[in-house]
Amino acid sequence: MAATEFELISRYFTRAGRHAVLGVGDDAALLGLGPGLELAVTTDMLVEKVHFFADADPAALGYKALAVNLSDLAAMGATPRYALLALALPVADERWVQAFAAGFFELADRHDVELVGGDTTRGPLAICVQAVGEVPRGAALRRDGAHPGDDLWVSGKLGDAAAAIAQRKGELQLPPAVLAQCLARLDRPVPRIELGRALVGLATAAVDVSDGLLADLGHICERSRAGAIVHFPSLPCSAGLIPFRHEGPVQRAMAAGGDDYELCFTVPAERRSEVEALSAKLSMELARIGQIVEHEGVILLDDQERKMDLGRMGFDHFG
Amino acid sequence: MAATEFELISRYFTRAGRHAVLGVGDDAALLGLGPGLELAVTTDMLVEKVHFFADADPAALGYKALAVNLSDLAAMGATPRYALLALALPVADERWVQAFAAGFFELADRHDVELVGGDTTRGPLAICVQAVGEVPRGAALRRDGAHPGDDLWVSGKLGDAAAAIAQRKGELQLPPAVLAQCLARLDRPVPRIELGRALVGLATAAVDVSDGLLADLGHICERSRAGAIVHFPSLPCSAGLIPFRHEGPVQRAMAAGGDDYELCFTVPAERRSEVEALSAKLSMELARIGQIVEHEGVILLDDQERKMDLGRMGFDHFG
Repeated sequence: MAATEFELISRYFTRAGRHAVLGVGDDAALLGLGPGLELAVTTDMLVEKVHFFADADPAALGYKALAVNLSDLAAMGATPRYALLALALPVADERWVQAFAAGFFELADRHDVELVGGDTTRGPLAICVQAVGEVPRGAALRRDGAHPGDDLWVSGKLGDAAAAIAQRKGELQLPPAVLAQCLARLDRPVPRIELGRALVGLATAAVDVSDGLLADLGHICERSRAGAIVHFPSLPCSAGLIPFRHEGPVQRAMAAGGDDYELCFTVPAERRSEVEALSAKLSMELARIGQIVEHEGVILLDDQERKMDLGRMGFDHFG
Repeated sequence: MAATEFELISRYFTRAGRHAVLGVGDDAALLGLGPGLELAVTTDMLVEKVHFFADADPAALGYKALAVNLSDLAAMGATPRYALLALALPVADERWVQAFAAGFFELADRHDVELVGGDTTRGPLAICVQAVGEVPRGAALRRDGAHPGDDLWVSGKLGDAAAAIAQRKGELQLPPAVLAQCLARLDRPVPRIELGRALVGLATAAVDVSDGLLADLGHICERSRAGAIVHFPSLPCSAGLIPFRHEGPVQRAMAAGGDDYELCFTVPAERRSEVEALSAKLSMELARIGQIVEHEGVILLDDQERKMDLGRMGFDHFG
């Protein structure tokens, strides 16, 4: 049964309005804002064969397309409010759209995010989401506030998602149970919204780890006109990867893999105990992995304090 | 010379901040808003082979990708402020990106629109723009405010862009000069920002004509729980198309073609003279093409007041 563009939108993406003055069904959405607030808006596009494979689970895609945007908002310390979705589809496959919407709204509902608009078209499978969040005026976590002497922190575990990709490329041989856990993190990253909000007023800079820890940390350093020293032995990895963390592909996954969507952030050293208290309060591992320094550039040190060269470190979509 | 994703963004899409609290270069943009304002946000995706051909002029693409979004804001009566841009490119072709950015900013600068964020990735050519505009609280032009008895208006000329497409499909044989003018309107539609703003407080409903007059007017009727009668002889077309307006493909282009991005709007009949005064003030043709009626559905009448059936009227990307 073929469904038209309008039917698909109406069936799966139209919901009763909640916060928005005007939502799905008009030319644009209208968002009312209280005084003292700023708006954080972001967009990410996911493309077949680049970010996922043609046979990818549509529910996981719907989830992830929103998750990567919410992760950007988390890195600003913003509270997500609204999203827009533009979707190019090769065919109007209703089951696919239904599953995609279910995955999208699974995450949206968890964070009370309202889909307020979008666009659907025929084309090679591409997903473009925009997310809009609120943050108290002047309080957002930016990339340009890190100072030499600040501690460098990262949330959760690093490298699971990239390890799953490495295995798919034949570079790794993880046991099935470990691989399954890595794949779950690749498919369903958890945007660190709660952490981001809690870091407002505490962190001096923050970024979400999407392109790889060293590359994303490089953005903080560049914009803060500073450098960073990262201690590889301090990088957190999941229990399943511990037996493999001496292997090159796993080391690269942890330091340069990205895709786990953890937060990397900087906090003045004298406020270290506040971060530890926050870790306990949120029941979330927060690892102190290095410090901000004056001389520019990011340096990765091994357990002997020797510089590590993990080869190609960042992830560039045109590389 | 290959350029990386970050270099291309930095080179062509980073500009000094103007209105935004925080723009390109962080995880998200921060937009401060004054009291009494609402925010209008919209997104449109343009995909190769669906919305344009592979050899399309990149400057025209950059222009149009923004124009179709600004047209949505115009239809809300909003003043455009910010845009985000997500771009999937098969290769990092610097000349292409440069020309694309030039076209994009040509229009952005004309309306003082600030590009505050985005995403670039490898993939089949796809362009996804989001635009954010401001409108006084409660004043936006919505689709659901039309009342039976309201006059039905449309701005400018209809059918040029669709006639160019019809000629490309071999359905029409326009002279070169007429075709050139039609192609210009297809490539560089003018979003009716000034008109949209002027209609705030005057029009009861508005929509931009992107999918075709009858289809877009259908959205107004559906959401206003009303119908409309459109008089084909009243539909405005450019001088070049007048000799061809008895031909089926041109009639379809005018009534159902879309892509001209004019505004269709409704105004109480007793305020007709205000629309005429506005037309004079803006030096823009505003044609009264019919009226809103109680019974649902959109009816197109010919010069004998007979119902016209132009065949497949709307434009559905999955049709």
